[in-house]
Amino acid sequence: MNKNSSNIMALAPNTSNKRETVCIFGTGDFGRALGHKIIQSGYPVVFGSRSTQTSSLIPKDAEVLSHAEAAQKAAIIIIAIQRQHYNFLTSLAEILHGKVLVDVSNNLKINQYPESNAEYLAQLVPGAKVVKAFNTVSAWALQSGTLDASQQVFVCGDDMEAKQMVMDIVRALGLTPLDRGSLLAAREIENYPLQLFPMWKFPILLTLGLTTFFFFYCLTRDVIYPYVYENKDFSFFIAISIPNRICPILALILLALVYLPGVLAAIIQLYRGTKYHRFPDWLDKWMLCRKQLGLVALAFASLHVLYTLVIPIRSFVRWRISNQIISQALNNKTQPLNNTNAWLSDSYLALGILGFFLFVLLGITSLPSVSNNVNWREFRFVQSKLGYLTLILCTAHTLVYGGNRFLSPSSYRWYLPNAYMLSLIVPCIVLVVKFVLIFPCLDKPLTQIRQGWERNPQYSE
Amino acid sequence: MNKNSSNIMALAPNTSNKRETVCIFGTGDFGRALGHKIIQSGYPVVFGSRSTQTSSLIPKDAEVLSHAEAAQKAAIIIIAIQRQHYNFLTSLAEILHGKVLVDVSNNLKINQYPESNAEYLAQLVPGAKVVKAFNTVSAWALQSGTLDASQQVFVCGDDMEAKQMVMDIVRALGLTPLDRGSLLAAREIENYPLQLFPMWKFPILLTLGLTTFFFFYCLTRDVIYPYVYENKDFSFFIAISIPNRICPILALILLALVYLPGVLAAIIQLYRGTKYHRFPDWLDKWMLCRKQLGLVALAFASLHVLYTLVIPIRSFVRWRISNQIISQALNNKTQPLNNTNAWLSDSYLALGILGFFLFVLLGITSLPSVSNNVNWREFRFVQSKLGYLTLILCTAHTLVYGGNRFLSPSSYRWYLPNAYMLSLIVPCIVLVVKFVLIFPCLDKPLTQIRQGWERNPQYSE
Amino acid sequence: MNKNSSNIMALAPNTSNKRETVCIFGTGDFGRALGHKIIQSGYPVVFGSRSTQTSSLIPKDAEVLSHAEAAQKAAIIIIAIQRQHYNFLTSLAEILHGKVLVDVSNNLKINQYPESNAEYLAQLVPGAKVVKAFNTVSAWALQSGTLDASQQVFVCGDDMEAKQMVMDIVRALGLTPLDRGSLLAAREIENYPLQLFPMWKFPILLTLGLTTFFFFYCLTRDVIYPYVYENKDFSFFIAISIPNRICPILALILLALVYLPGVLAAIIQLYRGTKYHRFPDWLDKWMLCRKQLGLVALAFASLHVLYTLVIPIRSFVRWRISNQIISQALNNKTQPLNNTNAWLSDSYLALGILGFFLFVLLGITSLPSVSNNVNWREFRFVQSKLGYLTLILCTAHTLVYGGNRFLSPSSYRWYLPNAYMLSLIVPCIVLVVKFVLIFPCLDKPLTQIRQGWERNPQYSE
Repeated sequence: MNKNSSNIMALAPNTSNKRETVCIFGTGDFGRALGHKIIQSGYPVVFGSRSTQTSSLIPKDAEVLSHAEAAQKAAIIIIAIQRQHYNFLTSLAEILHGKVLVDVSNNLKINQYPESNAEYLAQLVPGAKVVKAFNTVSAWALQSGTLDASQQVFVCGDDMEAKQMVMDIVRALGLTPLDRGSLLAAREIENYPLQLFPMWKFPILLTLGLTTFFFFYCLTRDVIYPYVYENKDFSFFIAISIPNRICPILALILLALVYLPGVLAAIIQLYRGTKYHRFPDWLDKWMLCRKQLGLVALAFASLHVLYTLVIPIRSFVRWRISNQIISQALNNKTQPLNNTNAWLSDSYLALGILGFFLFVLLGITSLPSVSNNVNWREFRFVQSKLGYLTLILCTAHTLVYGGNRFLSPSSYRWYLPNAYMLSLIVPCIVLVVKFVLIFPCLDKPLTQIRQGWERNPQYSE
Repeated sequence: MNKNSSNIMALAPNTSNKRETVCIFGTGDFGRALGHKIIQSGYPVVFGSRSTQTSSLIPKDAEVLSHAEAAQKAAIIIIAIQRQHYNFLTSLAEILHGKVLVDVSNNLKINQYPESNAEYLAQLVPGAKVVKAFNTVSAWALQSGTLDASQQVFVCGDDMEAKQMVMDIVRALGLTPLDRGSLLAAREIENYPLQLFPMWKFPILLTLGLTTFFFFYCLTRDVIYPYVYENKDFSFFIAISIPNRICPILALILLALVYLPGVLAAIIQLYRGTKYHRFPDWLDKWMLCRKQLGLVALAFASLHVLYTLVIPIRSFVRWRISNQIISQALNNKTQPLNNTNAWLSDSYLALGILGFFLFVLLGITSLPSVSNNVNWREFRFVQSKLGYLTLILCTAHTLVYGGNRFLSPSSYRWYLPNAYMLSLIVPCIVLVVKFVLIFPCLDKPLTQIRQGWERNPQYSE
Repeated sequence: MNKNSSNIMALAPNTSNKRETVCIFGTGDFGRALGHKIIQSGYPVVFGSRSTQTSSLIPKDAEVLSHAEAAQKAAIIIIAIQRQHYNFLTSLAEILHGKVLVDVSNNLKINQYPESNAEYLAQLVPGAKVVKAFNTVSAWALQSGTLDASQQVFVCGDDMEAKQMVMDIVRALGLTPLDRGSLLAAREIENYPLQLFPMWKFPILLTLGLTTFFFFYCLTRDVIYPYVYENKDFSFFIAISIPNRICPILALILLALVYLPGVLAAIIQLYRGTKYHRFPDWLDKWMLCRKQLGLVALAFASLHVLYTLVIPIRSFVRWRISNQIISQALNNKTQPLNNTNAWLSDSYLALGILGFFLFVLLGITSLPSVSNNVNWREFRFVQSKLGYLTLILCTAHTLVYGGNRFLSPSSYRWYLPNAYMLSLIVPCIVLVVKFVLIFPCLDKPLTQIRQGWERNPQYSE
């Protein structure tokens, strides 16, 4: 114990500003890139390699020695070798005793091995202090110096002082170390760089499915039907008119799907009379990707706004309006203002604007830096109160847009209702059920259940 | 002392990867939720309770023991009990000696007790190392696993190693610990989850007041007046036309109110000849909520943009324009281009666009993650230089919009001027005073005063 | 050693909640402001000064003593003196032995001295533990309490416990300490507050140059040419029409310039057959400011959107459209729908909307808080895949906008082609070269080179 701690004291940069030598095992691409960068930051670097033949690829200022010799020169040894070749380290166990070993390895698949590479390394060389770090940084980024992406380096390890030493190197490279605790976190850190938006898969698949369905639905009603029955070619509707139908429909449905699982959860809890049973798996997964669903909905709402605002510039719209005006002028008549129409048109636009505005606010509060500055009570207020208000406004926007067209038979072509009518089903269900759940006779027991009360408490004796 | 430190060494996860047992006092909702989550993260958990009867609510893998027995099994004890019941812990003082006690309690009101709960706990059990943590996390969030909101857990305490141990548990739960220093910070941490946007109260009340005033003002001028004198029903103006008058007015006034306190402060400092007297309280408070005022102003400006862009789609506007064209066509005359009108219309639109664009830039730089990446000099540059430029552009936008209508008697109905004229008062005052303050004869002494110079330095002997 | 560590133990806030005295050397503006703030946070403060005459400027609760007396009262001494006057500290070396000295100084120029002020201080008083902190905070901000800007305080130093003590004070002041590692980081920390958007210089200069060029180009074609040949006064085009030509052109060119260096780097690597030679300096610098170039391009694209959406409200546009309709009405004819025009108009609008939408997505992911939550693989996916898709959409938008006007002689005035044609040169080059680079015969060797392979490996023997 004593020997160790004095060892560390000697290594700690207490006494002078000279940086301690760093040893790198392995002269592969990542080892060399890291070596380059560490030398640039002012550390002497020594490479440990099977062959001590110097290649032009290895930074000029670095020495290349045998593994044993190199290890003896430094207190920190970066293991830039693949996990399959870790075995030979057992033969160096004595030299590596008390040293800080930095595991930088990555796997090819998530959870490839039963234990993380860093834990495996710690088992092989029990006398060493293993620290996991640098695996989230790419060799390419180190070399090109273009660290635009995350500059965070996750670090974990069981020895605090070893971790501090590694974190100092991370900082010297211009990166930000992020302490993730003990070596148990290594598995998560190793899986991290292999992910590609895991939470977005379900929302994006769902969106693709719904978009395809509604595209063909609208194509049938708006392009094929007039072509068949009226021999009119409206194929250019594919560019703007049809997307501008799909976008608001998807925005509304996805927004409702953000709030549906909460409503379902409340019903399940009321029915079971307890909150201590797990929800079904699909509901759990659904609840976890609500934020992503909401953001996709916001994306569609934004596109809807752009498509709508562009309407008066469209060549087709200009032609239609000017034709209407000319035919009125030729018939020598002016229309009086239709007050109902003015009301309908203005109020559905106003509802849409307010709904979109609140929706954007919700989106901004879901930015990590904003939601981190908000406490739990404030977050609940924004996401729940403002969220439902947004849903109400957007549903009302769609209802008023429909106006008195709902029952008109002309809106049914081939027995297909207007697409926006389909989009109203889910939000209306959510709003009605939520409205019912607000009644005291249901709200009171629900609140009690959520505070831990049980209808049929089962004590095991 | 020696005993303690060896104790900690034994607890530190240096030797093996087995996680240390965590003890939880109290089997209430929060204690159970935290227990569940900690067990999921791989820690053995033991509950300390008055009654050792196991309930089905308690996680299956957890033992329930008496307080004394449970405390002996673990080095970390989470006190999930309300402050009123802390007294009984004094009887366990001997067993708790050297242990890490984690205070997770919250109060119902801000500053409810003279000292924070954690400090109270430290007084009751002086031999223990008290750490404040977890109080900002909700039991509901822990249970449902939907930690969408802030994943930050504030931690404070006087013992570094005790804090490290608690922070490791926090990280193992997938949360981010944030070290807030010594136990003195506990009061602030306990108040934090009770807040509901404290900085936003004044800006929102002010906004509500101004909105109400301008709503009735515009209603009188634009709806009631034509109804009374011309018997025209323009009630649908309530949906878009009137909001689109209120929004720009409020945006401009609130933006000016962001810069007014700075101007007032400069005048006060010049008058007093020193910066070492405190400003009046109302000015201090006003200065502290400038960011919020600016963001509310930006919200109104955004709504104004949406309301404006929607104009050509409005049914009323289309009717009015087509009627104008038809009557011109019926009279067989085309108008020549009015060059002055074209200039006025284009330049007020351009000024508005540029003003809004800079306003959005200001908004983006006020995002926490952006302003954290900007140094003080850059922040001053953006907020002061760009801010004033925004104010100048927006004021000019409103002035040019008015154009030559200012003196026309037809814009006064019931002696009420157009609402936008009222909105120009505050920004014009701010800009004129600021312009005067830029003159060297005032700017030089002001700069000196702000660097610490005093006109009448008063040395106390 | 022993004496030191016991010393620190006594200072650590382990035993009681009473805060330790803080000493401040220097009663200048910054020293006083910091003193005020530290007293407010509950620490006793003592000032060390040449003259012990108390001024009214010094906070009432603070004592003013000689340097030696003041230093003896505290374990932490904040050196609020300018570097030029550090010399006298050598005479206090004995008293300062083992104390924590906090260097808060700043320089007037970047890299003014060979070593940082903090390192200079450490050399002068080798027995003390020097910590760099507080230099990024302004006295004005401390005094006025309006810490809207970054609340981060960079801290660095070689002694961990000294750093912890300073960081506790930082936290007590309501600021966020950021550990930047050993004292070697002091130079960077001292340069930080002197910067004014260093990465933005090149993009902004480039933008100004291009803007000026295209402004006069468009002015010549759109205002001077019709004035000379048709005697029409279109000077009001300066407000909206010409900016709305410049904005999309600059957005497209700058976006292409974001992707050009990557393409050039690939060509250079293919030619050299290795990635281990440095790129030319200009290419390195160019690659480092790609993010800024992209954001400026996004700003221009946003302005273009606003200028475009405002078109139907413009007085000139309304006049032109109504004149067209009236002349048609007077001629008694209605036009049939031109299907090609409808297709062209709708598809260039749709391409523009989608391109802008993806562009905004790219902008959002470049927010620090978002890019920090994204791993390297995800970042590459977004910036590379989505980025090229954006470039393709925006280029297609411009191509379709041109439509069949490319070869029409009427679009050449004074032999000058339409400005948007010029804007297509760079993006088309980038896209064509990128398309060529995707072919397997080039893509395969390039991938190998980027993984470290060399065509002519040169082993030094």
